[in-house]
Amino acid sequence: MIYLVVIAAVLALSFAAFNFMTVKRMPEGTEKMQEIAESIRIGANAFIHYEYKILYLVVGVVAVLLAVITTWHAAIALIIGSVMSGCAGFVGMKIATYSNVRVANRARETEDIGETVKVAFRGGSVMGLCVGGFALLGIFIVYMVFGIGMGQLDITSASYTNMLGLSFCPFTMTLSGYALGCSMVAMFNRVGGGIYTKAADMGADLVGKTEAHIPEDDPRNPATIADNVGDNVGDVAGLGSDLLESYVGAISSGIILAYHMFSKSLAENTGMSNELLKTLILFPLIFVAIGLIASCLGIASLLFKKHMSQDPHKDLDASTYLASGMTIVLGLVVSYVMFRSFESASLKSILGFKCGWLSPWIAAAIGVVSGVVIGMLAELYTSAEYKPTQNLAHASLEGAALTITQGLALGMKSCMAPCLVLGAGIIVSYQAAGMYGVAMAAMGMLSFVTATVSVDTYGPISDNAGGIAEMSMLDPKVREITDTLDSVGNTTAAIGKGFAIGSGALAALALMISYLYSYNDFNTELILNLMEPMTLAGAIIGGALPFLFSGMLIEAVAKAARKMVDEVRRQFREIPGILEGKAKPDYKTCIEISSKGAIGEMKVPSMLAIVVPVACGFIFGPEFVGGILIGSTICSIMIAIFAGNAGGAWDNGKKYIESGKVPGSGKGSPAHDAAVIGDTVGDPLKDTVGPCLDIFIKIMSTVSLVAVAVFAEHNLADFLMKFFG
Amino acid sequence: MIYLVVIAAVLALSFAAFNFMTVKRMPEGTEKMQEIAESIRIGANAFIHYEYKILYLVVGVVAVLLAVITTWHAAIALIIGSVMSGCAGFVGMKIATYSNVRVANRARETEDIGETVKVAFRGGSVMGLCVGGFALLGIFIVYMVFGIGMGQLDITSASYTNMLGLSFCPFTMTLSGYALGCSMVAMFNRVGGGIYTKAADMGADLVGKTEAHIPEDDPRNPATIADNVGDNVGDVAGLGSDLLESYVGAISSGIILAYHMFSKSLAENTGMSNELLKTLILFPLIFVAIGLIASCLGIASLLFKKHMSQDPHKDLDASTYLASGMTIVLGLVVSYVMFRSFESASLKSILGFKCGWLSPWIAAAIGVVSGVVIGMLAELYTSAEYKPTQNLAHASLEGAALTITQGLALGMKSCMAPCLVLGAGIIVSYQAAGMYGVAMAAMGMLSFVTATVSVDTYGPISDNAGGIAEMSMLDPKVREITDTLDSVGNTTAAIGKGFAIGSGALAALALMISYLYSYNDFNTELILNLMEPMTLAGAIIGGALPFLFSGMLIEAVAKAARKMVDEVRRQFREIPGILEGKAKPDYKTCIEISSKGAIGEMKVPSMLAIVVPVACGFIFGPEFVGGILIGSTICSIMIAIFAGNAGGAWDNGKKYIESGKVPGSGKGSPAHDAAVIGDTVGDPLKDTVGPCLDIFIKIMSTVSLVAVAVFAEHNLADFLMKFFG
Repeated sequence: MIYLVVIAAVLALSFAAFNFMTVKRMPEGTEKMQEIAESIRIGANAFIHYEYKILYLVVGVVAVLLAVITTWHAAIALIIGSVMSGCAGFVGMKIATYSNVRVANRARETEDIGETVKVAFRGGSVMGLCVGGFALLGIFIVYMVFGIGMGQLDITSASYTNMLGLSFCPFTMTLSGYALGCSMVAMFNRVGGGIYTKAADMGADLVGKTEAHIPEDDPRNPATIADNVGDNVGDVAGLGSDLLESYVGAISSGIILAYHMFSKSLAENTGMSNELLKTLILFPLIFVAIGLIASCLGIASLLFKKHMSQDPHKDLDASTYLASGMTIVLGLVVSYVMFRSFESASLKSILGFKCGWLSPWIAAAIGVVSGVVIGMLAELYTSAEYKPTQNLAHASLEGAALTITQGLALGMKSCMAPCLVLGAGIIVSYQAAGMYGVAMAAMGMLSFVTATVSVDTYGPISDNAGGIAEMSMLDPKVREITDTLDSVGNTTAAIGKGFAIGSGALAALALMISYLYSYNDFNTELILNLMEPMTLAGAIIGGALPFLFSGMLIEAVAKAARKMVDEVRRQFREIPGILEGKAKPDYKTCIEISSKGAIGEMKVPSMLAIVVPVACGFIFGPEFVGGILIGSTICSIMIAIFAGNAGGAWDNGKKYIESGKVPGSGKGSPAHDAAVIGDTVGDPLKDTVGPCLDIFIKIMSTVSLVAVAVFAEHNLADFLMKFFG
Repeated sequence: MIYLVVIAAVLALSFAAFNFMTVKRMPEGTEKMQEIAESIRIGANAFIHYEYKILYLVVGVVAVLLAVITTWHAAIALIIGSVMSGCAGFVGMKIATYSNVRVANRARETEDIGETVKVAFRGGSVMGLCVGGFALLGIFIVYMVFGIGMGQLDITSASYTNMLGLSFCPFTMTLSGYALGCSMVAMFNRVGGGIYTKAADMGADLVGKTEAHIPEDDPRNPATIADNVGDNVGDVAGLGSDLLESYVGAISSGIILAYHMFSKSLAENTGMSNELLKTLILFPLIFVAIGLIASCLGIASLLFKKHMSQDPHKDLDASTYLASGMTIVLGLVVSYVMFRSFESASLKSILGFKCGWLSPWIAAAIGVVSGVVIGMLAELYTSAEYKPTQNLAHASLEGAALTITQGLALGMKSCMAPCLVLGAGIIVSYQAAGMYGVAMAAMGMLSFVTATVSVDTYGPISDNAGGIAEMSMLDPKVREITDTLDSVGNTTAAIGKGFAIGSGALAALALMISYLYSYNDFNTELILNLMEPMTLAGAIIGGALPFLFSGMLIEAVAKAARKMVDEVRRQFREIPGILEGKAKPDYKTCIEISSKGAIGEMKVPSMLAIVVPVACGFIFGPEFVGGILIGSTICSIMIAIFAGNAGGAWDNGKKYIESGKVPGSGKGSPAHDAAVIGDTVGDPLKDTVGPCLDIFIKIMSTVSLVAVAVFAEHNLADFLMKFFG
């Protein structure tokens, strides 16, 4: 049955390759278009190469450390993980930089929305399929080599002693190492890409729109190419590796949890069998394989559709709903096939599966549904079709201060609804299948990630296509089509952000549960007791961490944007004829500024997430780290939702005003100026802070999970306690 | 020894009465000044009367409910608490409305900073002394009547069965009820006052400064009297009852904790004696009595000082440091006198007092020091003398968007340092004296509250004095003096806000620990396990609550401010000659708008804090409520620090620009406009959201503490569990 995983992975990767080639073979359009696309491609490539160099340097150092203090198995898995995630991000970004110009060209040639959507979505699907395909391929390798291959799935051979004399279970260590590899890539891609894209965007807007009063994506603006490069490195590669990380985190924490939780029952002779244990470990793998196949079908259903509607949102939704619906239906079959052979009563008594073989499916299905609902809630708060954003747009009539105030209020209020969904999901999935159920809900939510990433990547590709159309001065009709695509892309981006934080939160919680099991191994009960002073202090300090992290990111963006502003102003001043369109701006310097700014600024916040839990673990011990994790997870969820929704609403509120639907406003009015300020404030919040917090909590949990095996035994606090009695 | 409490209370209240009369006997100055002061006084009185009407209606309803579902003792204590807190707020506000004009007049007559400071501080000290005096008086009554009087301090007679057949310990129930009474007053004063003051302030600024370009406190602005009324109802009465609540919460949770924790040891015959138990219960009471006496001395030291320096900040600091220093020194004596008769070894083995009789003092002293340090940190982030605020001011040169962005980053980054202090305080005080130590740290931090409230109240009185000087067109020299006082007041306000949230957080944590002891009674271990799905879901939803609450408050302020804007615009339009100063604006209508807005908008958020924990308790049970409390406490701490520091920095950044210290800026420059936008955005954050979150977490904990005795036994979740097996 395990071969289903590799079959799904290969299927997805083949489909990705097919789509890649199909897109690449399409015509690129006019010479001007080719030239601009080439600049964007070169900029994006240069950045990712430079970023990956640093990334793999850090990965190398961490791998060596891991090999020394834990096991060499984990170090190899770490490298596999980083390669898989790195490939997915690289390929996805690559195709995005091919698709953008081809989308613009298709719009130019056919003047048909449906046909254009297909190209953009085909490009996006490559990223989605790579996420699912590479992630599962890597997990399959780890599972086969270190699990079945080394006989580690048999609990009796679970120990390995390393050179420092510490004992580990190589199987869970490799899985954690694999997840850590994916996390590190995601961290660098998200933080680096997030700073890059917003530094360019804010820099372009602050001078272009506010000072020189030229429209967005105007070729006279020197920062405009950098802005378009940013979409590719931040919104494509960053998003892809972020969700790949959630995906891997949810799957591997499910497996680790099952292993730790039930190998205990096995040792205690509670009626647990080795076969049941293996089934529990296998279930999440098979479920996501099924989810990947369902996603392929969902993607294919759109790509091979004959009659596209003129409403891209409907077609994209149909594809996602097909994928998630089929995942639920096929998941039921999987649950039945895998668990029906075990007696219902024994499932209930040994595992706490209240509904017998149905239990794991119920938990996973709850995850799928919660994911969809959380996405919808994000749409409700950020789409100009609903009251909250419309009210925000009206507040712009009263000036910048009330626009900001109202947006802050909107973002803050929007935290509750998704948290209610998360809370209910946790309670119900626990009732169905215990802690294993909570992990399965996380896994379920992410099982159709390929479909959601495909839709999410469609957005920045369309955005880029619009930019290229504008810069190559194509017929306004083309821009109209790409604008339609782009506005749908904004909505899908908001949904995607809601989904990313919701799924990231569940994945982080699942990782945290695995963390606790890892150091609480064979204890009577799983406890994260906030009345333990170490845990309580950890939770308070942990709560402050995402605020510190977010503040640092905002400052990083502002700093890089400021350099961009100086450069754009300099060019406007020093290059004669630039504003009349007679002289060509120096795009390259702007790209370099964004690149250097992003690379320079991303180091400290990225390292913070990796170093803090490890350092705290070795100084204050595992209880303190448990507190850090829960405090930072809770606060990160809130800030991420707040940032995403406030930023999204400011963005769409501005667009609503531009559409002229607010009486007494419109482009160029004082209300529009106020709305632009809101949008600019929201930029780093929604595209840097929110997405990076996703990763922040997951990487902290993953790092802790890997290191806990060591610091649970050896830490300064314990040592002092023993020393002073 | 208990009589020391009533002696301290009477001493404080007599001192307050003396200061009240002294201030009232001072001359009021010119007719114009008297007239303006009269308007402010009438406005403030009208609001507080109207607010108290609603407040006492709600108190009455809650008292009846309490009498029915718990005990009549608690209902009486609730009423005592609400009367004590109500009196303190009322008297403090009353004297503030007398002092403001007398401060302006003293400045006019003497033209001496030191003399003027004395008047303002004498006024402020009445609020401070009332907080300490009334709070302790009430606790003394409750302790004498329901503790000693009913013999409840003897564990053997600890039970009372109410009409619903539920059993309670009347002593802890009455203490919780007393704290709840104080909380409810604080909630209404803080939320109502907070909305009032910022609606008026924002309304006045949005039209006055931004549209009509007239200075602050200009008599031509119709909203200016309402703005000055707001300082009295929000910053004086609101702050006073807020800190009174923290004070009572910290003391009573210390007592309840000691009672629950050690009556268990008593029952288990671990060597605990009834005498030791009583000493533990008495210690926080005596310590705060000592703190109150020390605060009286600190206040007197300033009031009877012969040679005032020309730097008010130094004098005010000296008074606070004297009070806190003497509290620490006298506290050491108290600890020695009370605990030296017990053997050091038995204190260690029974109570976990690692340092014998020194332990409770160490914990309390840590509280005092932490409080001072947290206040200093707030100053570091918000005072224009330090880098963070200066950098923010420089960001204004680049427009409103970067001003907001930079301020958000500053606020977010500022969360970490105070949380490190809190975390370290918790760990060290726990090491010294266990959970009792954590409660003693909270008590210690608040023990010299009278001194801090006196300094805090000095601020709004000076602010008002400046307003009156401006409106009655006194010599600019007068305004100069009051401006000096006011700018010091801004710094003390920032320190006060930091202190309020720090102490509020510790008080809330102490209340939470009491909560857990109340339903975990006689259990083996105190557990708030976040791996319990109910608790985890509660923590996530609880984390979203303060965001929801904050969002609602910001919207409430914006809504009320908008009405104010409309009214001010209407008056400018319809009353001819108003802007030339020829016609008198209609101040009264503006006052009414603020009043109505505040009363109307405060209901929902206030009720949210009271109803949510009770409703959740009866539906989901005590574990869920435990999660709600911890989640909301952690997130509230962060948002309150963020809001306070971001808002304070925007405010002082604007002032820094106005002082002309940023090259290329100054009043009227585009940078100044950007800074004004930042200040306006910060207004509801620092003066409504931050302070109200203080109360929010305390009232939730107090309500839960009162109701847990009922819902721990009777809740829907348990019922369903039993029903479905």
